[in-house]
Amino acid sequence: MTQSPIPFGNQLALAVKEKRNPVCVGLDPRLASLPPALMPSSDASHTEVAEAFEKFCNEIIDVVSPIVPVVKPQVAFFEQYGPAGMFALQRVIAYASSKGLLVIADAKRGDIGTTAEAYAQAFLGSKGLSPFGADCLTVNPYLGEDSLTPFVSRSRETSTGIFVLVKTSNPGSGFIQDLQVNGSTISERIAEWVQSQSAAQSVAQLETDMKYGSIGAVVGATYPAQLASLRSKMPNAWLLIPGYGAQGGTAKEIGAGFDSEGLGAIVNNSRGIIFAHQSEKYRSLPTWQMAVEASTRDMIQSLQSETSVKNL
Amino acid sequence: MTQSPIPFGNQLALAVKEKRNPVCVGLDPRLASLPPALMPSSDASHTEVAEAFEKFCNEIIDVVSPIVPVVKPQVAFFEQYGPAGMFALQRVIAYASSKGLLVIADAKRGDIGTTAEAYAQAFLGSKGLSPFGADCLTVNPYLGEDSLTPFVSRSRETSTGIFVLVKTSNPGSGFIQDLQVNGSTISERIAEWVQSQSAAQSVAQLETDMKYGSIGAVVGATYPAQLASLRSKMPNAWLLIPGYGAQGGTAKEIGAGFDSEGLGAIVNNSRGIIFAHQSEKYRSLPTWQMAVEASTRDMIQSLQSETSVKNL
Repeated sequence: MTQSPIPFGNQLALAVKEKRNPVCVGLDPRLASLPPALMPSSDASHTEVAEAFEKFCNEIIDVVSPIVPVVKPQVAFFEQYGPAGMFALQRVIAYASSKGLLVIADAKRGDIGTTAEAYAQAFLGSKGLSPFGADCLTVNPYLGEDSLTPFVSRSRETSTGIFVLVKTSNPGSGFIQDLQVNGSTISERIAEWVQSQSAAQSVAQLETDMKYGSIGAVVGATYPAQLASLRSKMPNAWLLIPGYGAQGGTAKEIGAGFDSEGLGAIVNNSRGIIFAHQSEKYRSLPTWQMAVEASTRDMIQSLQSETSVKNL
Repeated sequence: MTQSPIPFGNQLALAVKEKRNPVCVGLDPRLASLPPALMPSSDASHTEVAEAFEKFCNEIIDVVSPIVPVVKPQVAFFEQYGPAGMFALQRVIAYASSKGLLVIADAKRGDIGTTAEAYAQAFLGSKGLSPFGADCLTVNPYLGEDSLTPFVSRSRETSTGIFVLVKTSNPGSGFIQDLQVNGSTISERIAEWVQSQSAAQSVAQLETDMKYGSIGAVVGATYPAQLASLRSKMPNAWLLIPGYGAQGGTAKEIGAGFDSEGLGAIVNNSRGIIFAHQSEKYRSLPTWQMAVEASTRDMIQSLQSETSVKNL
């Protein structure tokens, strides 16, 4: 499921159908929340923290790789520890790929021209095609269309994908994204662009599960009405839905993200899975890895009982 | 001029006055444009390219540190070479700080909550306060006010600064930034927010050169009318002006960025200085370092003859 000559949008459809669920496990390592067995000493160097992060993420990958189609490392938590953290990120991505997972680098990069090309070359392309070796990257549209096209070009060249920030899950996301211009919000304008790109790349005429292109959109679980509306505006775009669980989004609220076959969206959960050992519900399990597995299976079950994911 | 208990906005004013010019040298290393003496072999590893970038940037720093107040490494060009590139970035920033330069990490980061905190902790804080050790970071406002405040808090704690993307220099910057909502463009709305933050931090009542806070704005040289208008909307904010030189902005066009004393803006030039050895005008100089110095001095002279920078 790693490097493949087929477009990322199709790889993602195959992976979701194979695992029969659309769960994306967010790899957001935070020092203060590591399981006690992995906690470095209080005077640990950046290198030691980064090594603990790598071990933590790889153990999560061991647990979830047979169960879910995709993982999403949050680059900031690695970059926080400098070059040592970025080295850990590189190794975590490689390990996830080796276990058959698709990997979305959540870096929210955005710049212009050759600078955007440099970011695209940093992240997009597994099996040696890029140093970080991800299958997909999140990108920020504030600098305009010419800041996005280098990522689109790179995704075509390397059978990778991008998720463009359209409507984010945070309380303040409306500051720019909800502003109305001539009857459309900024989010809707970006959504139109995403749809045009993904429609051009998808092969809707061949098979239903090939109708989603490789240029997707980030749309938060925390704004269900906008999720439904944006879904209908982007019939050929994969949605990456953050905000499930810890941020408040429920399975029922994200039902509108899926088509009738349960395709079209992947749902990220970070803290709710990777730090499940800290929660009331899973705390009594014998190991933190069991908490990871139980919370992942519970999330899948919630999606299956509340949404069209049951049809996968 | 590196770590200091005084706010970044004031450090920048002191540095600009000391060097008597507002030139920011953009450190944008690109493999294909390196001087022949530094060019690694065509099969060079990422580590070898990163080492060449470090040597190139450090030699530029040797040339420009007695002349200009600030340098701006473009993070993408380092990240393109993976962890090895990020290690080179870390060392280049440390070297620039050791030579008395202020350092703006041009990373255009943007995320929410604790993720934004992680990016802020990665970059903001010299002398061991952060792994990358910069004095200032560029940030992207698309995710809203709650994505910016973690950077503002960190800047207060570490006497560092941020430059928020307001109006970028690229041809497509209007895609979102120029959209009008109730008579104001998106750029103007972000500008209002920047002004409110910098006004709260500046100490206008004490001295004229202390009137600029630590929360600045990126406003491109390539849109002179908007530059003038945005300058007037942000009287207490430093402007970081990209787009001079290679992208087409001239000294005359950016005159509106400065106050009558020549303060209030810094002007970035990347390719026009660091790759001056490739240009018609400087190609005949005996060394590439001489081309760097000559192009820097010519830029200073242009600003002095065309703008209030002569009053510094």
